[in-house]
Parts: sequence; structure tokens; C-alpha cells
Amino acid sequence: MSDIRVTVWGENVHERTNAVVRGIYPEGMHSTIAAALNAAGGITARTATLDQPDHGLPPGSLEETDVLLWWGHCAHGEVQDAVVDRVCNAVWSGMGAIFLHSAHFSKPFKRLMGTPCNLTWREAGERERLWLTSRNHPIAAGLPDHFELEHEEMYGEPFGIPDPMETVFVSWFQGGEVFRSGVTYKRGAGKVFYFRPGHETYPTYHDAHVQRVIANAVRWAHNPAPRVADPCDAPNVPVDTALEPITERGPRLHGQDDRGFR
Amino acid sequence: MSDIRVTVWGENVHERTNAVVRGIYPEGMHSTIAAALNAAGGITARTATLDQPDHGLPPGSLEETDVLLWWGHCAHGEVQDAVVDRVCNAVWSGMGAIFLHSAHFSKPFKRLMGTPCNLTWREAGERERLWLTSRNHPIAAGLPDHFELEHEEMYGEPFGIPDPMETVFVSWFQGGEVFRSGVTYKRGAGKVFYFRPGHETYPTYHDAHVQRVIANAVRWAHNPAPRVADPCDAPNVPVDTALEPITERGPRLHGQDDRGFR
Amino acid sequence: MSDIRVTVWGENVHERTNAVVRGIYPEGMHSTIAAALNAAGGITARTATLDQPDHGLPPGSLEETDVLLWWGHCAHGEVQDAVVDRVCNAVWSGMGAIFLHSAHFSKPFKRLMGTPCNLTWREAGERERLWLTSRNHPIAAGLPDHFELEHEEMYGEPFGIPDPMETVFVSWFQGGEVFRSGVTYKRGAGKVFYFRPGHETYPTYHDAHVQRVIANAVRWAHNPAPRVADPCDAPNVPVDTALEPITERGPRLHGQDDRGFR
Amino acid sequence: MSDIRVTVWGENVHERTNAVVRGIYPEGMHSTIAAALNAAGGITARTATLDQPDHGLPPGSLEETDVLLWWGHCAHGEVQDAVVDRVCNAVWSGMGAIFLHSAHFSKPFKRLMGTPCNLTWREAGERERLWLTSRNHPIAAGLPDHFELEHEEMYGEPFGIPDPMETVFVSWFQGGEVFRSGVTYKRGAGKVFYFRPGHETYPTYHDAHVQRVIANAVRWAHNPAPRVADPCDAPNVPVDTALEPITERGPRLHGQDDRGFR
Repeated sequence: MSDIRVTVWGENVHERTNAVVRGIYPEGMHSTIAAALNAAGGITARTATLDQPDHGLPPGSLEETDVLLWWGHCAHGEVQDAVVDRVCNAVWSGMGAIFLHSAHFSKPFKRLMGTPCNLTWREAGERERLWLTSRNHPIAAGLPDHFELEHEEMYGEPFGIPDPMETVFVSWFQGGEVFRSGVTYKRGAGKVFYFRPGHETYPTYHDAHVQRVIANAVRWAHNPAPRVADPCDAPNVPVDTALEPITERGPRLHGQDDRGFR
Repeated sequence: MSDIRVTVWGENVHERTNAVVRGIYPEGMHSTIAAALNAAGGITARTATLDQPDHGLPPGSLEETDVLLWWGHCAHGEVQDAVVDRVCNAVWSGMGAIFLHSAHFSKPFKRLMGTPCNLTWREAGERERLWLTSRNHPIAAGLPDHFELEHEEMYGEPFGIPDPMETVFVSWFQGGEVFRSGVTYKRGAGKVFYFRPGHETYPTYHDAHVQRVIANAVRWAHNPAPRVADPCDAPNVPVDTALEPITERGPRLHGQDDRGFR
Repeated sequence: MSDIRVTVWGENVHERTNAVVRGIYPEGMHSTIAAALNAAGGITARTATLDQPDHGLPPGSLEETDVLLWWGHCAHGEVQDAVVDRVCNAVWSGMGAIFLHSAHFSKPFKRLMGTPCNLTWREAGERERLWLTSRNHPIAAGLPDHFELEHEEMYGEPFGIPDPMETVFVSWFQGGEVFRSGVTYKRGAGKVFYFRPGHETYPTYHDAHVQRVIANAVRWAHNPAPRVADPCDAPNVPVDTALEPITERGPRLHGQDDRGFR
Repeated sequence: MSDIRVTVWGENVHERTNAVVRGIYPEGMHSTIAAALNAAGGITARTATLDQPDHGLPPGSLEETDVLLWWGHCAHGEVQDAVVDRVCNAVWSGMGAIFLHSAHFSKPFKRLMGTPCNLTWREAGERERLWLTSRNHPIAAGLPDHFELEHEEMYGEPFGIPDPMETVFVSWFQGGEVFRSGVTYKRGAGKVFYFRPGHETYPTYHDAHVQRVIANAVRWAHNPAPRVADPCDAPNVPVDTALEPITERGPRLHGQDDRGFR
């Protein structure tokens, strides 16, 4: 079996403009994540960033991407709608997508969820403890029933997402909040995972447990089937090709070669 | 208990431009649906159409609407994005929403689902039989286990929707297809129902079973709680107001009065 | 509209055998809960206990019960299987069911879930904070985004339940755990809600927030439709009554009047 | 990667007592299914039958089974409860389970679902057409959007199951019914798939599409993680091992070494 092809998309702004973030992730968070995936086995990860042409995701690039990871924060609004369309179409066609931390407010995640994806937050470097709520889920393979991140930003409920297909992790925060921090969805032929940790001023993506969750999630989200050719197609099925013999009856709005309305 | 306040939104194009449709719905489909709801008891329905200013849904109008029904077909693309935003915000705040037939491709439905919402179709006036798949569901109150529409447009699977919260009806078609024709979702505080029947060249909205499903769905979708004030708000919770006493630790990205990024 | 008819089932063992519990609930927890429901408006609640004939739930009693509440702990094993069957049949027919606290391990809850329903626990009188995860859900009507119980038993994840239809509350515990403390399900025509708080050595069922959740849940779980007559029936549909004309073909296992195998 | 270890459980009654069934499946349906799986690649399938000691599933056997397939019909009632317990425990621990056709009424399936699992039926050798409702689902890998079985027993809605995690197939029947014929669930750490076709008087398990669905489902249901050691365990977490320092407060019901009630 050939490697799973991953693209790690990073906004890459605070890594360049904030000394603390640059100190923790000198090559950018996306590079740290990609390096961890490349070391995990069976995965080949490349990176793409906001400042590249087409944000590093030109037409055709997602056909070569089995699973896309997305981290963004301060520049959600700068992501071009054409790229958002491209990402959503790829997911609907079968690409896996993993949204990290502040990507809860990214354009493609909000588009795929159909909800505000809002939450409460506090940046105090407090303790987060992630509890496994779906024992032996592939995304939790090799993990204990709970693990801790000593310093993280707090995200609190209510989290404005649709009820998930599966809840895999729920977080406890030192300051008194909880959060559904690992949730799965299907959108068309694509699998989607949201994973909460990863505030840029803490070394979260250097954590072995976090790296393992992300590598597991890549394997879980990978759909080896050939992509759906046109995931939005709504074909007319002419009467004379109906699977059971029928005769057209009554009035008709559409002409013979009508392609339908959108 | 006061009446449930319904707005029936109709595109109202084919009713004016197509003689067959005008013959069946001289006042427009929206008026037929609203009249049936007003006769059902406990519901006060008004109408709104595409050609009105703000498509009949100006700012403030949805605060007075408990449940919105939406029928559109040939003019999906003419619906202004500001109105789509208004509808989605109202749903997230607690308004119920019922999407009828070709509204599967309407902008607000696609936005709320996060998927292409595509399907196959055939306009041949064939028989549709709707089977109840969730016995005694409130949306099916008073209905038999199945009912028929002698002439309908066919919609066939695969239907590009997320796996529903509940599947209430599945349709059988004479030409050999099936379709999940009644499905429920939650989006924020709002309940959403999609109901398949209702091609404009057939008298579907005059059918007693169909009218009953729609009235039932209005009652099911009605959330009597006060609307969520700002359904997209993502408030910061300052350290000194944390529910458990914590001390700020480590570096910080956001300033004291930061409102977060979007 | 007539009142919702509720039966509050209580094991009523520790209230008689343990001085602490008797001090908090001199008439039994079931009586405290029933009194709160009777004061809530639109609800008429009676009680039933383990020590009564048929555990207070004789044949026919559940036909007069719109919503059943269940609290049990030390005597799960003493509940007769005939009563468990009766409860499950009533739920499948349309009765609502609310399982409280240690009823996670009751026979009817485990039967309805199809999973072990296990968890971790600690009896230390620690603080529990319940967070709303589904804003404006009917079960949370009139409640703030979070509320606290100063002394409760801890229940921790992983909680061995199926992924819920909706998660309404998630709990934070002082000792570091989290728990999905309010979850909804459909089972046949019946709605099911599990609500975590309620350890017998603490005054939880005297708490106004808890009482409100339970009254809300009763209204949510109530299905006003007539009960399904035989929720397990699997009727044969003879060829000559098929909705579409078909001719019997090929070999046949069942005789003409066969009722099917179980 | 080593082969997935499958056990195909067959009731094996009609194959011995009914000439038609024996003619189609001289070695039993279980043998036909196992042979197809052994030919599919990456799967090693053995069989087990009702008439064997412990129904061929003695203690320990399921630890060596990654995925269990179950076909039963006329002898559901003869399956020992100890074996049902063993199967459910194995599923909760991580074993995959696939229930075929009339196994909708088998003891383990009903136990895992928590619902009656009833339906309507007709044995007339009519045409069934299965429609894919979840494009590119792993269980549908390599399959067209629909395929037909010229002779099958009809199963009709309403089907008394919980709303599935995913609906993969919906069937159309010549006589006018529909049925959710491929549905997925999670139960504990185990994945469960129900697949409708397979009446014993028709050659369904010789069909290439059906064989492909079953082999796909085996791969989908396989959870390579080590089994959960005791899937029903509910451990006490003593105060002095709490993850956050807490002090015991208030009264206490349980003794120091209490194992909890069931």
C-alpha cells in the first residue's frame, strides 16, 4: 500500500510576526506537524501556506491530497472563496479533512458544518485534560483514557457544531469549562475530524500524544476509493432509460435536454 | 398558547410564467400551503416571495417568524446572499425551517447542510409512495404507514446530504428509484426538516396527506424558547472571571480587550 | 390539553436503610421528584417502588403513563425481567423514559441502549458543573449556560453508551473528570433521556436547576400520539395484497398462513 | 498485515431440512459466504453452526475472531443466552459484527440495537434493487450506484431500528415497498453492520455484488486495536488518586473498597 498523501495547510502569520510563536515553531506549525506525520510511518506530508499563490492549493493539488489538515487563526478572512470551494469539493469527492484548533472559525470548516462553530475562550496557559469518550476508536489508537496538556488556551461549551457522528474526546479545563475536543463527521464521500488543541503560543504540536492523535486521524480520514468525479452533479434520468418501464404522464416543465435548475 | 407564526416563502416564478402551474396554483404554491396551514389550527401563516423587496424577508421579519417554509426552483441563484445570511442566522437562533422539494438546491439549505444536496431526477408524472420509517414521529402524526402521490417528479439516491438526525420518510418510485424524502436536522438552536414532494406541475400541495405532514412539521420545528441573541458570538472569558480560580501562565497572543479573530 | 401523566419509579432502598439518605429524602427520592413535577405545571406525577407488587408497574399501568422516570442503584438485579420487558415495550410503543443517575446500570436502560453503560466513579462530595452543549434545547429551557452542584458523586468518561442523538449537557468535575451528563435517544416511538446528577447522599433533587431539567425533559419526552399497538409485530404482506401488482415466482419456504420466525 | 479473521455463523437448519435450500447451498449458506470471503483476499474465514457445542462459539473463540457474521432464521430462540452474552461482550470489546437478512430478529442483534427490529415481509421472489445512499462508503467500494437481485424476499418499512450512524443502502421492491437495507452502528468499541439480502430459497450469496458488499463490510468492521479487556468494568477512582487534588466532603454511601452496585 502506498503512503497516504497529506497536505498540512498553515496560515503561517503568527510564526512570522510573533517572537513567542516563532520561538516554538521556527519553521511554522505546519512544518512541525508535517514532520511528525512524515515520521509516523505510511504518510507523506507536504505543506502549503496562505502567502503562496492560491494559498498553496492551486487547481489540481487536492486531487493529489488524500487528507488535508487546516490550521488558521488571524487571517481566516483572507482565504479566497475559490480555494474554499476547492477544498469543500475535494471533501465531498472523498478527501479527508482535519481541522485544528482555531480552524473552528475557518471558512471551509464553517461551510462544511453549516453552523456558526462558535465557542467561549480564554488565553491563560491553563491545564487541559483530554478524556477519551469512544474507547478504541481508530483516532485514539495507542492512547490512554486521558492525557494532559499543561498549558493551553481554553475553549468552552456551548460549541456551535452539529451533533457529531462520533464524539472521540471531551476536554476538562482547569478554569472550570468543558469542550467536545474531538468530533467526527461525514460530508459527502469525505470524512472530517475536528481536534481542539493547538494554540500557537504553546508547544502543543510537539506533544507526543497530540502527534499520535493527528497521525491516527489521518489514517482514519483516508478514503482509498477513487474520488467521486463530480460530487455536485444532479443528472436527469430520461424516461426511456428508467430501470422499470414507465410511460410519461401529465404535464412537464423541463425540456428534453434540460439540465435542471440551480 | 398563541399561534405558531409561519412564513411560507415561495419563488413564485413558474406560477406566473407557466400555464400548467398557474392552473394548479392560481395564487401561487406559497398561498396554497399557507391556506392549508391557516386551516390546520394553532398556526398563523403569511407568505413572502422572491419579487418582493428583500424577497419579502426584510431585517426583523424573521424575528416574528417561528417557522420558515422555503420553496424555490428556477431562481435559486437570484436569492441575495444577505437574505441567505439572515435565514441561517435565524435558524441558528432557534427558528424552525422546512425546505420543500426543489429547495434541496436552495442557497440556505445547502449552507445549513454543508453538502452538495444533489440527487437524480426525472419528470414523468410517475407514482411516488412515501413510507414511514419512524413510527409515531410527531411529523407523521395521524398518517398511515404509507401514502401515495399518483403523479410526481422522481428524485433518486444517492442524495447528497449529511446522515440525518432522523429519517422519517423514504419514497418508492414507479420507475425503480428510492429517496430519503423526509429527514430531520438540528442546526444551532433551530430544527430543520426537508420534505421531498411538491413538483410544481402536479397538485401535490392540495393533497391532504402532504398538507398534514407540513402542518405536523411546523409544530415539530417550532422552538418556543426565546431566540439566542447572537448565535455566532464567541466571547472571551477573562482570567479574573474564571469559575475556578486560576492564575495566568505563559505567553499570550491576545491583548486584554481582544475580541478574537474570525 | 390534559396533564402529562408521569410515573416516578424509585428503588426506595437506601431511603429506608441509610440514615443520611432518609434525612435528605424522608419520603424517598421518588416522592421529592414527583412533588417537584406536580408543582411544575401541566404534569401529574405518581410514584412506584421496587417493593410494591410488580414493582408498582403492573400490566396496564404503563398504558396510563406518558413518561416514566427511573432511579435505581443497589437493587438493579432484583428488578423482574417481566417488568423490564413491560417498560421496554412501552418505550417502543411511544412512552417517554428518563433514566436518572445510577440508573445507567438499570436493566431497562442497558436493554434500550444495547451497550454496557459503564463509567468511572468516585464518591467524594466534589463540585460538579453542568455545561449546556445544545443551546435552547427544550430540555434546557430557562436554564443558564452552566450550573453547579456543590456536592456530587463523580461519574467519568469513557461512558459506555451509543453516540447520542443529541448531547445536551457535559459535566466538569473538581477532581479532573468530564462526563456526558445529558443525552437523548429515540427507541422505537419512544424518546429516552439520561440525566446524570442524583447521588442519594446529596440533596440534588431539591436543587431548582435539576428540578427544571427534569420537568423540561418530561415535556420533551412526551409523545402525544396514540401508542403503537404492537411495537414488535412483523406482519406478512400477502402477494395478493401487494401495493403494486406482482406474481409469485420461485420457491417458497413459508406456508400460506405462516407468521414468520423469531 | 495479517489476514482479518472471520467467523461466519450459520443456523444451518433449512440447508438440512429443505430441499430447495440444500440445492442452492449444499454445504450451507455459511460455507458459501466463507468461501467467498476466503477468495476476496486478506481475509481468513471459518464457520460455526448452531448444532455444534456452544453453537461453535466456545469461550475464547471470539478472541480469535476479528469480525463475526451471523445468519439465523427459524431457530433464533434456540441460541443460548450465554452465547449471546459472549457475542455482545466481544462486540463491546472491539469485534466487528455483520448481521445478515433474517438475523434482524436474532438475539444478539436485538440486544445490540435495543429495539424490536421488526419489519413487514413477503416471500414472492420479487425484484429487489439496492441503491447506494452513501457514495464511496468503504462498504460500497467498487460497487455501482445500484444493483439488482432478481428474486428476493421483501422486507418493508417501518424497520424497528435506532436511527443508524450511516445509511449505506436503501432497497426498492417490485411490490411497492422500500427498506433501509444497509445500516451501520457503533456499540462500544465494535462496529456493527446490518445487510438485508439473503433469503435462503434464492441464490443471493452466490451474487458477486452481494459477496463484494460482505467482503467490504468485513474490512470496514475490523478494528485492529487490542480488545478492551473488560468492556463492562466500572472502576472506582479513589479520592487519593484523583487527577486534581480534592478533599473528601460530606456523607458517603460506599465503603473504602466498594466495587459499586449493578
